[in-house]
Formats: sequence, structure tokens, C-alpha cells
Amino acid sequence: MYILVTNDDGVWAPGVQALAKKMTEVGEVVLVAPLEEKSAIGHGITIRDPIRVEEIKLDGLKKVYGVNGTPADCVKLGIEELMEHECGLVISGINQGPNLGTDVLYSGTVSAAIEGVLLRTPSIAVSLASWEHRDFSVAAEITAALVRKMIRENKVLPPGTLLNINIPAVEKEKIKGIRITELGPREYENHFEKRYDPRGNAYFWAVGKLLPTQGDHEDCDTHAVENNYVSITPLQFDLTNYEIIQEIRKWGLEDSI
Amino acid sequence: MYILVTNDDGVWAPGVQALAKKMTEVGEVVLVAPLEEKSAIGHGITIRDPIRVEEIKLDGLKKVYGVNGTPADCVKLGIEELMEHECGLVISGINQGPNLGTDVLYSGTVSAAIEGVLLRTPSIAVSLASWEHRDFSVAAEITAALVRKMIRENKVLPPGTLLNINIPAVEKEKIKGIRITELGPREYENHFEKRYDPRGNAYFWAVGKLLPTQGDHEDCDTHAVENNYVSITPLQFDLTNYEIIQEIRKWGLEDSI
Repeated sequence: MYILVTNDDGVWAPGVQALAKKMTEVGEVVLVAPLEEKSAIGHGITIRDPIRVEEIKLDGLKKVYGVNGTPADCVKLGIEELMEHECGLVISGINQGPNLGTDVLYSGTVSAAIEGVLLRTPSIAVSLASWEHRDFSVAAEITAALVRKMIRENKVLPPGTLLNINIPAVEKEKIKGIRITELGPREYENHFEKRYDPRGNAYFWAVGKLLPTQGDHEDCDTHAVENNYVSITPLQFDLTNYEIIQEIRKWGLEDSI
Repeated sequence: MYILVTNDDGVWAPGVQALAKKMTEVGEVVLVAPLEEKSAIGHGITIRDPIRVEEIKLDGLKKVYGVNGTPADCVKLGIEELMEHECGLVISGINQGPNLGTDVLYSGTVSAAIEGVLLRTPSIAVSLASWEHRDFSVAAEITAALVRKMIRENKVLPPGTLLNINIPAVEKEKIKGIRITELGPREYENHFEKRYDPRGNAYFWAVGKLLPTQGDHEDCDTHAVENNYVSITPLQFDLTNYEIIQEIRKWGLEDSI
């Protein structure tokens, strides 16, 4: 199997390198990742600028490409242009920091996996639930074990479905198990810190302070990770709110024009 | 009512200016939009760079801010920092070009409206279904009429739900009516055009060629717009694939670790 590994922290990040190297035990890995960190880039793609690709040498990996683009660009470019064989799996991560609840909307890591399923390829996003913990070995091992089991037992996700995996940043013995979850509540207190540059001009830093989780339950990704379970959330990309369609049809909006 | 108007084509785009001016008939408008075009930026937010804001003078508008950030940044910054009153409505557009089907995943226009509902504000995204047609007056008029009707008749969307409106680029008499729709099928043929710069270095342009719509039906946004109906799709942002959760729980993935 040919596996495209990507991320949003950039090709030099330890998380993506640990994942790519571990995945060589499962298949032929092509690492295609942004040259710069692209956290919180969402599902951006590069259409107004040219995209450059650099071949990079990394010990233990045969094919590594750095791209001056977004994670979604890397997946498109990897599958459509750089990989010489049909891609059997897109795996994005291991992200430094969790991607839980509404985080997935902003996440380049998750967007790369969504791009994978848009291109009809089974896709997984993986995040380590810590912004500081630099050891990705346990997370890489768990990810590879999950992928191996799915391949061995022929567990196939339906088209348009990807998995979003979050792994607690604890020793392996402390991980209590795996939960199949839904996206939980995730709230930030946003504000902007105003500063002045040395020339006296104002600028802002966006500050998003994570609020304590409220209103989650055992089936939530947030709850699972807080309790040292690996969280696996199946995601899809149809944003239609089907439940409300019938009600809005009764509003008679067509009278307004 | 205080209305935040934004877009992804940038503050100088005719679509956002037509919308902002028209919305002054409905409420007090604050226009906060990117200084540069940010099409296909998705739900990116700026967390690694400072954000600068420029106050701009535009005839017919009291408050206009240009931001060196993304559409989602503009909404956050507008609501949390720049607006002096509580924001009653976020309206994003009028985009030059449709945002139908999977387009919404890449769309800065739609992401701005998603950011609005994340910040608990009623939100609407509006697009003109043409990349060439420069006259936004009909689309602005229809949008204002819809908003007026919703306010007058107290039609309130449930929390977390936004409206994605696509307006055919035809004369008003040719618009057949309004349909409340779901996101339809939208397929692109992606490829990368390889070129060489004057110094001999390779670069790529992403090319996404829209394929003829296949498999849509009367309830789809794609079908509505192709048939000269205004399409209104209620969207939500929970990507969980609930239907598959029970099945994946039976896969016994917890045995793998």
C-alpha cells in the first residue's frame, strides 16, 4: 500500500517525521508536507500563487517533499502529481496539540484528511493532545496498530468518511483504551491583544483561551481524551442542516423577492 | 440592528461594497474585510502573525476596516474588538462566484459566516453564481429583502445554523423563485500545471476544472442555481458522522493497542 503522510505543523515537525517513519512498517510512505507551519489554516488551498515543491532528504524515508502551500495543497499535489502509484491511505499528523470539537474547523491537520476523502482516498487525522509533549512514539505506535488492524480485518470506511484520532499525551500504560466518539463541546474565550510596533503603529494578536469543557459526556471526544482514552471520531463533510430544511420551507421566503 | 459585513474577495471588491451599502437600509453597517483577496482560504485564522487594521473611507459607509487577515479573522476581530455595539447579524459576501456543494469547505465567504455562528451571532453567506458578472445590485437587493422579511416576521435560525445563499447571475425578472436546498454534488477535475520560472526552477499552478454536475436533484443547491432559482441552504458545523459510530464501535479497535 502507498501511504501519503502530511501535516500542518510542517515537514520539519517531529510529529510528522515520527508518523512517517512508523508508517514505513505498514506500507510505502511518501511524505508531502508544508515547508512552514500552517496551523489553523483550515481548508485553505493555494489558487492565486504558484506552488513550489522541494525534495528533501530525511533518514529512514525514501520520498519527502516540502511544499510552500497548505496541508490540503499537499494532499492534492501528492495524490495528483507527486505519487507514482495510487494512494491507498492519507494520514495527517501527528499534530502537536489536540483537534477536538470545533477545533476541527480550523485544523489544517483535519482539513488534509478531508481533502483525502474528497479525492476518494481513505483518510485519517491524528493529533497528540498536548502542545508541549515532544515524544510522539506512543502516538505513532498506536496509530500504526490501528491502521494495521483495519487493513488486516478489512474494515473499510464508507466514502466521504474520515477518522479523527486524538491521543492522550501520557505513557502507554496509562492509556485506558479507545472510544469511538462524537465531536464534543469546545469553547474558547477570544480576544485581541493590542500592541504598538516600534514605529508607533497598532497591531493585534489573536488570543484564544480554552475554557473548561462544559456539557460534554462519555461519548464526546473531549471527555475521552480528558480521561486518557484514545478518541476516534468518524467525520464527514456535508454541512447541510437537514433537520431545519422543512421548517425553513414554511417561512415563505419566496414572497420576499 | 448592528450588522457586520465581510467577505473573502477583499474590502475593495464590488460585491462586498454593494452588499454593505444596501444593508445600510436595514441597520447600522460595519464593514470589516480582508485588505487582500482571500478566496479559497477556508476557515483559516491568523495565530502566528500580528494582525493589522486600517480604517478606510468609503462613500456611503460610516465604518470600514481593512484587515491583513482572513475572513474568519475579520469576524472575530469585528465582533470582539472593532464593533462598539452587539452584533446582530454577520453577512458575508457578495462573493464573486458560486459557493455550492463542497465549495463551501474551501470558501472564505462561508467560513466567515460559520465563524459568526460560532460566536453566537445569526449569520448569512451570499454568493453571486458567476465569476464574470460584475453587477451585484440584484443580488444585494434580494439579500436585503430576505433579511428584512426574516427580521419583520421574527424568523430565527437555531443556534449553530447559518444560511448559505447563492443567487443566479441573471436579470431579476429571470429569477424563478427561491428554493430551500441541501448541498449538492460538486466535482472538480484537479491537476497541477508545471511551469519553469526564468531561472529554470519548477513551480505548479493548481487547476480545478469544474465537471458537469451529475446526480443532483430538485432539492440540491446546484440544481436550483442552474435553473435560475435563488438557493438557500441551511448549514451547520458539526462534522461528526453519527450514522457510522455504532458500526465502528463493533470493529473492536480497542484490541489493537
